[in-house]
Amino acid sequence: MTKRKISVVITARPSYSRIKTALKAIQNHPDLELQLVVAASALLDRYGSAVNYIKKDGFDIAAKVFNVLEGENLTAAAKTTGIGILELSTVFDNLAPDIVVTVADRFETMATAISASYMNIPLAHVQGGEVTGNIDEKVRHSITKLSDYHFVASKSAYDRVIKLGENPEFVFNTGCPSIDLAAEVSQSPEFDFDVYQKYGGVGSAPDLTNGYWVVMQHPVTTEISSSRKDIEETLFALKEVNQPVLWFWPNVDAGADGTSTGIRAFREKFKLENFHFFKNMEPNDFLRLLINSNGLVGNSSVGIRECAYLGVPVVNIGSRQNSRDRGNNVIDVGYDRNQILSAIITHQMEPKPNSSHVYGGGNAGQQIADLLASLPLKFHKTITY
Amino acid sequence: MTKRKISVVITARPSYSRIKTALKAIQNHPDLELQLVVAASALLDRYGSAVNYIKKDGFDIAAKVFNVLEGENLTAAAKTTGIGILELSTVFDNLAPDIVVTVADRFETMATAISASYMNIPLAHVQGGEVTGNIDEKVRHSITKLSDYHFVASKSAYDRVIKLGENPEFVFNTGCPSIDLAAEVSQSPEFDFDVYQKYGGVGSAPDLTNGYWVVMQHPVTTEISSSRKDIEETLFALKEVNQPVLWFWPNVDAGADGTSTGIRAFREKFKLENFHFFKNMEPNDFLRLLINSNGLVGNSSVGIRECAYLGVPVVNIGSRQNSRDRGNNVIDVGYDRNQILSAIITHQMEPKPNSSHVYGGGNAGQQIADLLASLPLKFHKTITY
Amino acid sequence: MTKRKISVVITARPSYSRIKTALKAIQNHPDLELQLVVAASALLDRYGSAVNYIKKDGFDIAAKVFNVLEGENLTAAAKTTGIGILELSTVFDNLAPDIVVTVADRFETMATAISASYMNIPLAHVQGGEVTGNIDEKVRHSITKLSDYHFVASKSAYDRVIKLGENPEFVFNTGCPSIDLAAEVSQSPEFDFDVYQKYGGVGSAPDLTNGYWVVMQHPVTTEISSSRKDIEETLFALKEVNQPVLWFWPNVDAGADGTSTGIRAFREKFKLENFHFFKNMEPNDFLRLLINSNGLVGNSSVGIRECAYLGVPVVNIGSRQNSRDRGNNVIDVGYDRNQILSAIITHQMEPKPNSSHVYGGGNAGQQIADLLASLPLKFHKTITY
Amino acid sequence: MTKRKISVVITARPSYSRIKTALKAIQNHPDLELQLVVAASALLDRYGSAVNYIKKDGFDIAAKVFNVLEGENLTAAAKTTGIGILELSTVFDNLAPDIVVTVADRFETMATAISASYMNIPLAHVQGGEVTGNIDEKVRHSITKLSDYHFVASKSAYDRVIKLGENPEFVFNTGCPSIDLAAEVSQSPEFDFDVYQKYGGVGSAPDLTNGYWVVMQHPVTTEISSSRKDIEETLFALKEVNQPVLWFWPNVDAGADGTSTGIRAFREKFKLENFHFFKNMEPNDFLRLLINSNGLVGNSSVGIRECAYLGVPVVNIGSRQNSRDRGNNVIDVGYDRNQILSAIITHQMEPKPNSSHVYGGGNAGQQIADLLASLPLKFHKTITY
Repeated sequence: MTKRKISVVITARPSYSRIKTALKAIQNHPDLELQLVVAASALLDRYGSAVNYIKKDGFDIAAKVFNVLEGENLTAAAKTTGIGILELSTVFDNLAPDIVVTVADRFETMATAISASYMNIPLAHVQGGEVTGNIDEKVRHSITKLSDYHFVASKSAYDRVIKLGENPEFVFNTGCPSIDLAAEVSQSPEFDFDVYQKYGGVGSAPDLTNGYWVVMQHPVTTEISSSRKDIEETLFALKEVNQPVLWFWPNVDAGADGTSTGIRAFREKFKLENFHFFKNMEPNDFLRLLINSNGLVGNSSVGIRECAYLGVPVVNIGSRQNSRDRGNNVIDVGYDRNQILSAIITHQMEPKPNSSHVYGGGNAGQQIADLLASLPLKFHKTITY
Repeated sequence: MTKRKISVVITARPSYSRIKTALKAIQNHPDLELQLVVAASALLDRYGSAVNYIKKDGFDIAAKVFNVLEGENLTAAAKTTGIGILELSTVFDNLAPDIVVTVADRFETMATAISASYMNIPLAHVQGGEVTGNIDEKVRHSITKLSDYHFVASKSAYDRVIKLGENPEFVFNTGCPSIDLAAEVSQSPEFDFDVYQKYGGVGSAPDLTNGYWVVMQHPVTTEISSSRKDIEETLFALKEVNQPVLWFWPNVDAGADGTSTGIRAFREKFKLENFHFFKNMEPNDFLRLLINSNGLVGNSSVGIRECAYLGVPVVNIGSRQNSRDRGNNVIDVGYDRNQILSAIITHQMEPKPNSSHVYGGGNAGQQIADLLASLPLKFHKTITY
Repeated sequence: MTKRKISVVITARPSYSRIKTALKAIQNHPDLELQLVVAASALLDRYGSAVNYIKKDGFDIAAKVFNVLEGENLTAAAKTTGIGILELSTVFDNLAPDIVVTVADRFETMATAISASYMNIPLAHVQGGEVTGNIDEKVRHSITKLSDYHFVASKSAYDRVIKLGENPEFVFNTGCPSIDLAAEVSQSPEFDFDVYQKYGGVGSAPDLTNGYWVVMQHPVTTEISSSRKDIEETLFALKEVNQPVLWFWPNVDAGADGTSTGIRAFREKFKLENFHFFKNMEPNDFLRLLINSNGLVGNSSVGIRECAYLGVPVVNIGSRQNSRDRGNNVIDVGYDRNQILSAIITHQMEPKPNSSHVYGGGNAGQQIADLLASLPLKFHKTITY
Repeated sequence: MTKRKISVVITARPSYSRIKTALKAIQNHPDLELQLVVAASALLDRYGSAVNYIKKDGFDIAAKVFNVLEGENLTAAAKTTGIGILELSTVFDNLAPDIVVTVADRFETMATAISASYMNIPLAHVQGGEVTGNIDEKVRHSITKLSDYHFVASKSAYDRVIKLGENPEFVFNTGCPSIDLAAEVSQSPEFDFDVYQKYGGVGSAPDLTNGYWVVMQHPVTTEISSSRKDIEETLFALKEVNQPVLWFWPNVDAGADGTSTGIRAFREKFKLENFHFFKNMEPNDFLRLLINSNGLVGNSSVGIRECAYLGVPVVNIGSRQNSRDRGNNVIDVGYDRNQILSAIITHQMEPKPNSSHVYGGGNAGQQIADLLASLPLKFHKTITY
């Protein structure tokens, strides 16, 4: 029997980490052949190219597609997606996959969804059905309507995909594959490397032995003009905390400039003795960093997902993760230095949160691979109402 | 006060006809400025370029975009959409519209939807919420999830858009603007021109005074391989009817080749004394042709919409119009010469159907223009559940 | 030792035939690995997809790229080239060839040349230095200025490339690989198949035993508007000859429509009892057809090249082959039915022309492969004056 | 009489400055209408968007095209050109210019040349015929072979374009329009603004009253890997000079990263008390800065052109300006700190060079406009040999 060819398109380094255990499970599945396509910001040095991580993890890359148009504006985001469709269609035409897998909801993942669905290749969507209240949400639900199989990460996401008129027969609450990694890492949570030596970055090198905070805050697409102001509130709050801060630069997104500029200006203005800034980190190390931290501040989905499983306290800022399911590890605040500071203090006074399986129990990757191997191939569907 | 700039993108000649009364109402509205963009197959001679009709109707064209990739396969359809996004983004960047309007559900209309929504330009979708059971349906609902305003054509479409999680405040059952035109034409239904002389075409020139059938059958995207067989069933059935047949070539779509080849081969094999083949016709003339015909055979949406209002008998073949609301003028059949023939005979024996307002009462265009002028501008939304 | 990877890009069926012996020689060369890329009209059914021929000839296809934009106008030709660059760059990025080979001078071959030269991949150009006086010539010399190695087909082409400031060390008069095929076929010139049965086509099926004429006339890009008139002159002339005519449809090119329309209209107007129309033919069969014909009429480069070697009489019409080297088998005429007819009659009264080696002696393919294996890799050059 | 529409495409800020007097002359010409198109890095903030300068100078922008693909590698440069062709073809299709003007030799100017020449729009090339020995040279001569009119900047460039087989009737030594600006500015050479206040930048703010050096050094495309090492030699040399240094960041080009990284690393390592770094400067101010400086160091074409007219001493480093005509103001050196330092010292000991008209006398812009208004429109050419 010939193996089913499964093409997974990775367009950003974080998406790679999120889906990695599924990739492994596909690669190891006797009935599947993995065709890994790497595109968009996942290829760019400036966002920490995923290519080296991918190779190091033992995956072959079937095709690379550079398609990020410069501009850091919304026009560029749209055009990046257009180029992505143009080129991914050629890639699929040449690779002839049996199923294409698209991950999550970044704007350029739409390119994968359109190419596959228009070419009558069965399309599987990982992490549909969530609610966030920004452009990602338009993209996410729009991809749901193009997809044939849905591998969602939580119960409420499952319910929402069904409400969107999808056939329940093809909607599966597998949990999120990113939790698989968290589960694995939580078995050996110690990190024995020197984080400054291994990952470089800029700023001071505060001693981490008595606790520290991790910050990861991305610009919110539809609020470009205020992204600089937003980041400053977080900067002021953490300056007040007077504990070590490990800060991660934001990903590419329209508006990234506002956030980055805000950080740079703040650094030039204030002497930040407790702050260190990283570009990126290997996922396993990052998870260990979180496990051993006082908590995470910002608007990363890591705070909502992995940290729920890991029981890491999170201060979630603004609307980016709005309406996503939460464990009891999250305090939600606005773009306001006082609210942020107050939430940090609250977390410090409370006991560590319990682990929550709201985003799955750690075997999403294997479930996804098994479904990809066994689901009937189909690209024809109609709304259920 | 500056006028709101409304950019409407036309990608196919039939879409132009369908939306024309809305274009007129926008053009004539004191608070609106029309920016008409013509793209894709609407520019191609082979499908009857819409440009001349548009100019003749008194509209200026703000920009033209050639983006149809050759191939008549699904890869080409996907790539056409990618090129469309790339170029329409530039067009919108230069025209800076306040609202973008996209029409219906052809694959390449997705390009308009993505460019506008990604660029944070409020997006209005005309004719969402319908059900057809082919790739168009994936596209249609996917566009709904990207759109900010919904101008739907029937009550069931209205209900479906609401179920898809759209805010009822921005969903409007305006009826279909194509009905406006039908309503107008039905006031003066006589056609006094010689149809053969005015529109050329090939085949014999049967006398139309004692009635005739009109045929318009498009290939169905997800059934490429069988499109030739499908069209032959219709050809055989109409050959049996022994009445004049005015046949219209199909639009561009993957699979068009199967349909066209089938027709050509049939013509070479059989002497079709009653058949005349047209490439296209001005919409008003086409409506008059329908009003005076015995009925319409095929799978065109005209049979479902305009013919409902006009009370023209329709034999609707196959799945293309599946689940769309119907007046009582339609008999649905499969791709089967006997079923088709039997439905034609049934229609001939029954009295003419009554006019149905299921797709609106004839003022959709004006309603749409008024809404575009008065709706609050917004591009931020979240699902209602 | 690792083999040098040689990527050859084929963008049209005729280019494939022309370069085929070089492809074979590359494939069989112990130090070379062939990476065959098929793009543009070479993939389209409408121009006779080259894919089946390529597979039948035993070549693997490393990548396919659909990039022909519809429109049959000059805008579409430019955009086709732009898409070609976009996608071929990705293909080269993934295939990582040591040398890229581009063939001749069709507008879209510029895409290959730009992608390779911009990516610092050594670029070899086959058939530079010729003169034709149309847009092809701009393209051809422009590609010469981007290329690192030049494999030209005649002495005058060699001289011209040197005059263009290229380093003589990297210019080689290999002759044209199309002549290799002609040389091979001329060893067994008989054709024993039924041409109508094997190749279909339309029109009558005249008896060929007492001689026939072959016609192949392409539209000339910069003379779009008159292409219909031009083709009619040829049609009238051959109608007068009163001998069987085997006519081949033109390739894709801006203006193709004028030519095709002219032929179709002429066929509907006149009863052409001696004419048969083919879409395309396998190169070997076509060469045999030429060898056994009374001669070739039109503006195909086959008349100038292969027919020189084969000694086939040619009536060459118009400016398309202007200034190309000729054997003594060619009579040049204008777009004028009388001149064409008169040239045909002259050929009929003269003895068969001798074979000329002006375009090489039949081992161009092997020479090219040997050069590709031995030339120093370099992509840095400067003009010689 | 309708005015001739002249579309000029600007793809980089420096090209804008270079062509500005021609734009003014076209705008003011009674028989011409200017259609200014701004694209590529000319739109990007990171390289100092030209848009604000253009508007401030009183020009309207007919169309903007974002087409720079991210990656800062050669693949991205090729793809940027492909996207440029795709989109500029649409722009030209909509603007319908009578003549298109392309400037100089940056990789993406090829997009303008291909779109115009393929669309049979007469193409004028400014600054062809020069020799530099890098990828720019391939591009430059390749564009010459696509162009119909040639406005060259020096006698040797004129001779070279003729040798390339261009018809002398359409080759004009107008001089370089950048000299026009230099001539104008040299009438009022004083600068009375505070350069640090007006242009910001980073670094110390040395006193300029006793002289200073200006540095502008771009990476050289085909020498990517060594661009960091190259820039360090210049940095070391100028550190030794012990006079104020005003340093300008390089433009976008593959390899820009090496250069920028080198500068940043050097700044972090050494305390550069005499160095100030600028992103960009208005051309007139920059020219005044040069006139009042001790001289220019680097590889900018400004040193070869404007500085020849202005009599400013130049230390020209490396191969980038190889073989371009020079006044006697230039000392050529390799990437070597000792050679650079020695050339600086030599200049300091010599009297100021005389003005040279090798790149024109200051009326190139007007000559170009007059030629664009009077030349016969044509897009058909053939090589002269």
